[in-house]
Amino acid sequence: MLGTMQEYPLTVSSLFRHGRQVYGASRVVTLEEKGTRSKTFAEVAERAERLAAALRQLGIGPGDRVGTFCWNTQEHLEAYLAVPSMGAVLHTLNIRLFPEQLAYVINHAEDKVVLVEDSLVPLLAKVLPELRTVRRFVVIGSGNASALGKEVLRYDELLAAQQPGFDWPELDERQAAAMCYTSGTTGNPKGVVYSHRSTWLHSFGITSAAIFGITERDRLLPIVPMFHANAWGTPYACWLAGTDLLMPGRFLQPDPLCRFISQEKPTVSAAVPTVWTAVLNYAEKNPVQLSSLRLVICGGSAVPQSLIEAFQVRHNVRIVQAWGMTEMSPLGSIAHPPRDTPASEDVTFRAKTGRIAPGVEMRLIDGAGKVVPWDGESVGEIEVKGPWVCASYANDPAPEKFHDGWLRTGDVGSIDSRGFMQITDRAKDVIKSGGEWISSVELENTLMAHPSVLEAAVIAVPDDRWVERPLACVVKKPGAVVEAHALRDFLEGRVAKFWLPERWAFIPEVPKTSVGKFDKKVLRARYADGKLEVLVVGAAQWPA
Amino acid sequence: MLGTMQEYPLTVSSLFRHGRQVYGASRVVTLEEKGTRSKTFAEVAERAERLAAALRQLGIGPGDRVGTFCWNTQEHLEAYLAVPSMGAVLHTLNIRLFPEQLAYVINHAEDKVVLVEDSLVPLLAKVLPELRTVRRFVVIGSGNASALGKEVLRYDELLAAQQPGFDWPELDERQAAAMCYTSGTTGNPKGVVYSHRSTWLHSFGITSAAIFGITERDRLLPIVPMFHANAWGTPYACWLAGTDLLMPGRFLQPDPLCRFISQEKPTVSAAVPTVWTAVLNYAEKNPVQLSSLRLVICGGSAVPQSLIEAFQVRHNVRIVQAWGMTEMSPLGSIAHPPRDTPASEDVTFRAKTGRIAPGVEMRLIDGAGKVVPWDGESVGEIEVKGPWVCASYANDPAPEKFHDGWLRTGDVGSIDSRGFMQITDRAKDVIKSGGEWISSVELENTLMAHPSVLEAAVIAVPDDRWVERPLACVVKKPGAVVEAHALRDFLEGRVAKFWLPERWAFIPEVPKTSVGKFDKKVLRARYADGKLEVLVVGAAQWPA
Repeated sequence: MLGTMQEYPLTVSSLFRHGRQVYGASRVVTLEEKGTRSKTFAEVAERAERLAAALRQLGIGPGDRVGTFCWNTQEHLEAYLAVPSMGAVLHTLNIRLFPEQLAYVINHAEDKVVLVEDSLVPLLAKVLPELRTVRRFVVIGSGNASALGKEVLRYDELLAAQQPGFDWPELDERQAAAMCYTSGTTGNPKGVVYSHRSTWLHSFGITSAAIFGITERDRLLPIVPMFHANAWGTPYACWLAGTDLLMPGRFLQPDPLCRFISQEKPTVSAAVPTVWTAVLNYAEKNPVQLSSLRLVICGGSAVPQSLIEAFQVRHNVRIVQAWGMTEMSPLGSIAHPPRDTPASEDVTFRAKTGRIAPGVEMRLIDGAGKVVPWDGESVGEIEVKGPWVCASYANDPAPEKFHDGWLRTGDVGSIDSRGFMQITDRAKDVIKSGGEWISSVELENTLMAHPSVLEAAVIAVPDDRWVERPLACVVKKPGAVVEAHALRDFLEGRVAKFWLPERWAFIPEVPKTSVGKFDKKVLRARYADGKLEVLVVGAAQWPA
Repeated sequence: MLGTMQEYPLTVSSLFRHGRQVYGASRVVTLEEKGTRSKTFAEVAERAERLAAALRQLGIGPGDRVGTFCWNTQEHLEAYLAVPSMGAVLHTLNIRLFPEQLAYVINHAEDKVVLVEDSLVPLLAKVLPELRTVRRFVVIGSGNASALGKEVLRYDELLAAQQPGFDWPELDERQAAAMCYTSGTTGNPKGVVYSHRSTWLHSFGITSAAIFGITERDRLLPIVPMFHANAWGTPYACWLAGTDLLMPGRFLQPDPLCRFISQEKPTVSAAVPTVWTAVLNYAEKNPVQLSSLRLVICGGSAVPQSLIEAFQVRHNVRIVQAWGMTEMSPLGSIAHPPRDTPASEDVTFRAKTGRIAPGVEMRLIDGAGKVVPWDGESVGEIEVKGPWVCASYANDPAPEKFHDGWLRTGDVGSIDSRGFMQITDRAKDVIKSGGEWISSVELENTLMAHPSVLEAAVIAVPDDRWVERPLACVVKKPGAVVEAHALRDFLEGRVAKFWLPERWAFIPEVPKTSVGKFDKKVLRARYADGKLEVLVVGAAQWPA
């Protein structure tokens, strides 16, 4: 027996209509070199209509990809609304990709038109000779664009030449709306293609009071770039909810950001921890008014509890960690403390990876492929399912990323009986020793609490008896004198006995990736090549 | 180009899993004759598993209908979770239907099993001889059930005989989850069949901060019955959000309700205006603690502004009007005041029909079938569209209720530029005069403000020149002396000139329906039969 309900497709166009019809007076404010500019949702919607008309004239048809090479601005939002609603596919290009990756993703997605901000023209021009599918560049702003050749078009001129009142097509909810490439540590970037349905559902999901709870009474400042998993979905959610969007453009340094915050008084903001650390430091020396913020969503990497505490104590601003992946649209969890949390534990909870969001299902799979219970202690790789979780990649199925219809997140952790998860490691960095898992991250964090240790990276090395064992690579603080057995003694009682490394190496520094993360690949290679001097202290213990 | 996202069906089972896994410690509290009883979501979930196993043993298969004849209780919630999740269809029976309607809906839906509360056995037994499809009655409670024959089963015994751990099937999101009959004023009741998808989406929708914004920190008291459009969707939404459910059972009188509120401290509640009026009166004479309520959702009929004011002033409790229909799952709008509403207008906004909810589309269609602008003045019939709006009825397509894929609500009103709607009349009561519409309700309300008028009902009567004209049927207050021309003078300046009725009838009382509404059908019939004495005063004016 079927329901008698309408077959109403869940589309970006329907979000778009709601925001413009009900919240036409809400505003999009964009930060510029000098001051700000502001438009209403109604004005932005009309400009999106003109943009769609212009793109159609440029030959963009159903399913064609339109790239954006932009910061967070009003024009980028216009593309967010127009491109999917006209039946084309928005491809947000990460301006921080290495040139070869950038060329790869544009060619792989077969972008036909790229919208590019004038300030970013030089960056895009670097890959110009490699691009095989782009027919037109549309430059936003009036800056010099000669590096892109003679055929560049100007965004404002294109819009001015069109009429409002675009005739939006009916769309199927499974159609592609937007795509975003993830840059994994190995292999080529992989394209996640959000459908209209997944975008609609994610947008609705994150307006729920259990997640961001944004309404028309909020003003949201997305600092996380719109080329990173759609700025965590905030532009669409704000449009749906009538929440003002405060767009920081390219001004992501603490000074302009803090002035923008003081002036426009956002109630909600979203950014990676690095941004908030910079803001915190800036606020120590400069008068900054952050108190309009009722919620700061922080994610992208683990959020230090000290950061949450400092914001709470010094600015009465509530930072809450959220976790997700490009493959998850991105929201998977948010660390709102559960009810009845004592005040003393409020910050601790907010620093956790988070509570499973409605709409998302999770399970933990251990090294033997078995489901692990939610007891807050047992660890396994986190697998996820849900209407806004991806099932494959664009022309790149990558079956190793999926498991019986679940997405393998590559993160390892535990979940407690209230659905609160804690990620302890990346699956590839976990050390599988004697059938048990050892968290390299926890060993590193414990070691780095030792007064003589500057940095520590722990990697798995092969072991005849235990399959893998941890090797602790330690950087001493300048002038510090400490030996491996003392560090091992320090760990004892702080971690399980069978975690205690018997292999140690003192190194001058931990190799890092371009974004500053520990590059364990390099350490593993050095070990394999016999280039690390390994000391052995004690012996591996049986798991208790 | 299609998205690469998972084909994850939106089902009641998925809501069910989320609530039990993440909010297993949330509670369902049921009010009883003496005191309350309480179970956790985890316990309720386990009982739902046993219920599903028991129903399967009774022969309930995919798509079979299971009726419920129950108040708002924990057991009713168990049926809400178990029946759709096992692939069967929950049919909530309105205990207030006339016997012939009740028999009609049970037979029309072909209910195989009916779960019935012991206190309601006598009511159901009245229609026993008429029932053609019911094989088994399952009685909740230990009260006498002999009126239903010898074959009755006991709910608790059935559950006790089963094991938890039911193997829930995979479901298609378009499958029927639940059904609810609407009792229109004419013809047989019509069955609205909610799909899994529509139920999932409505549940997600109403947890959004723009609608009810409920979270795990809330406790919700649904006074609106679970047989009225699923208690406005609150049981599913609460389960999804981990919100405690406070179930009032059959104790809907102000005395037990107020004690329940004082004791259990709900933060949100939902009921028709009559309930809140009774609570208000009760609270004048009895000590009542209502201050735990942060939001009272009120709907089902127009909410008097005076009621909202009284709750605000006397109890600091915020009543907000919501509007919808069984055909809309039911939520269509909610009257949260828009941002920047001055404090002086806050109550006025909350008494409006409401702002269009995210997920719902509306348009206004005038008498000529044209779309009317959203200017807050132009009126038309409200038509709605959306993923939780029905497209037809169970085995009863009723094409006159639909228009180009939109549901005709039968309500007439205006919408302003911010999506705030105001219903002014029922479409069938609107008077179509000279190509313009005259609101019978507004004429009635204005007339009833005259000191000599007790009641007034305005109906359309045929007119050679204007097609229709209003006939004002007036009941004078006892002992009052007033004439038609004085009433016409009173209206002048208060309504548009072309609205002024020239036909008047003084009647001893306005005929009423069984639920106390004006029965205009009877008045129209009396007029047609020449049984009303009509005075003519003045003449119809041209619309300005």
